[in-house]
Amino acid sequence: MIIFNVELYGYFAAILTTLAFLPQLIKTLKTKKAEDVSLITLIMFLTGVLSWIIYGYNISSTPILVANIITFILNLLILIFKINFSKE
Amino acid sequence: MIIFNVELYGYFAAILTTLAFLPQLIKTLKTKKAEDVSLITLIMFLTGVLSWIIYGYNISSTPILVANIITFILNLLILIFKINFSKE
Repeated sequence: MIIFNVELYGYFAAILTTLAFLPQLIKTLKTKKAEDVSLITLIMFLTGVLSWIIYGYNISSTPILVANIITFILNLLILIFKINFSKE
Repeated sequence: MIIFNVELYGYFAAILTTLAFLPQLIKTLKTKKAEDVSLITLIMFLTGVLSWIIYGYNISSTPILVANIITFILNLLILIFKINFSKE
């Protein structure tokens, strides 16, 4: 019997859209530059992710909280390294 | 009377994390390069967003569908232009 579980798509989606930023962080650290990565995109995205964290906290949703806290940390690191490498 | 609406954080978050990719698309088109943007990140992110679309369709969630379709289109365009510009 094959059980078609819709929730699995949700978990798969959450894991992928969260961990997707890890290769960007690794690439930025390796090449020591992220000139082509948009600063406005990073700031808008971080503000949005922070709003998801506030929303997730208020509706007591652990998946929304966990996924967005990891996404926030990864993108904040990308932003910090982008700014630092551009100064060098 | 101030009404504190938690849902507003959700909408604000969805709008920001969706439209955040527009400045990246504009920057890529202007500079005609996206070398520093991770290819693996784009592919993982697009796969994740596609899963959100399938999930949103299955649970009949219009906000999830709309936000992720726009995010998918913006990131697909960034991927296409990144590949095209790298060939030039």
